[in-house]
Amino acid sequence: MSTVKFSFSGESQGISRFVGKARDFQITIDQPPVSESIESNNPCPVEYTLASLGGCVNIVAHHIAQELNINLKSLKIKVDGNLNPNRFVNGDSSERAGFTDIDVQLDVESDASPELLDKWLTIVKDRCPVSDNLANQTKLAIAV
Amino acid sequence: MSTVKFSFSGESQGISRFVGKARDFQITIDQPPVSESIESNNPCPVEYTLASLGGCVNIVAHHIAQELNINLKSLKIKVDGNLNPNRFVNGDSSERAGFTDIDVQLDVESDASPELLDKWLTIVKDRCPVSDNLANQTKLAIAV
Repeated sequence: MSTVKFSFSGESQGISRFVGKARDFQITIDQPPVSESIESNNPCPVEYTLASLGGCVNIVAHHIAQELNINLKSLKIKVDGNLNPNRFVNGDSSERAGFTDIDVQLDVESDASPELLDKWLTIVKDRCPVSDNLANQTKLAIAV
Repeated sequence: MSTVKFSFSGESQGISRFVGKARDFQITIDQPPVSESIESNNPCPVEYTLASLGGCVNIVAHHIAQELNINLKSLKIKVDGNLNPNRFVNGDSSERAGFTDIDVQLDVESDASPELLDKWLTIVKDRCPVSDNLANQTKLAIAV
């Protein structure tokens, strides 16, 4: 398969609200829940980051389960991330801007052995696109 | 401000569909558009990654504009990312799993000078949480 280009584009609708589209699908992004003075009616950016990771782990988990003949009866995923807002809010350069750590917890129901589930999890980590982009460096350009 | 914990959790609803919540907000994630055999009714994981980046740049852009007394009359944002699906699909380890590069293009209407907009953009890049997590390494744990 050759390289695929993915896109998202839209327009600012105020200080924090942004409405854009990926293909025909609208995604609305709102204020993070760090200030009660601004209404928040949609997930904030970093919540979409965690959702993209959870959704990606789900797809890769099923794909690798098929390769290893694992029957996944059910799969629940919880993603947590810790972030100190001080660099964003106040320009405090002693903190990094983004999540310091992200934790993905899978709750899986399957007849597969613990050893096979370990192997499955190792491959999932290695082949998950969003995990790769969060765990490792990516060339990122921002321009006017 | 102290560290804030953000969370997203939900349940797999088939091979590719995942429905979860961040606070009270539902986010539904679907199949990437790489196979026509599976219906895709929602954005795919990596599209949410790009959306989280675009939405985060929007919020930080407005926040820094206020600090610098820049009046942003309008702001459009387009985010593109290139990804080779071979590692995910076939386990081809010669490719990385995620985006090789991500490009954020801002279309801004403002009376600010080009020099001030350059300064603004430099600070936006530095203080944007999602930009940080994509450009740099983050500690990521995935466990059953």
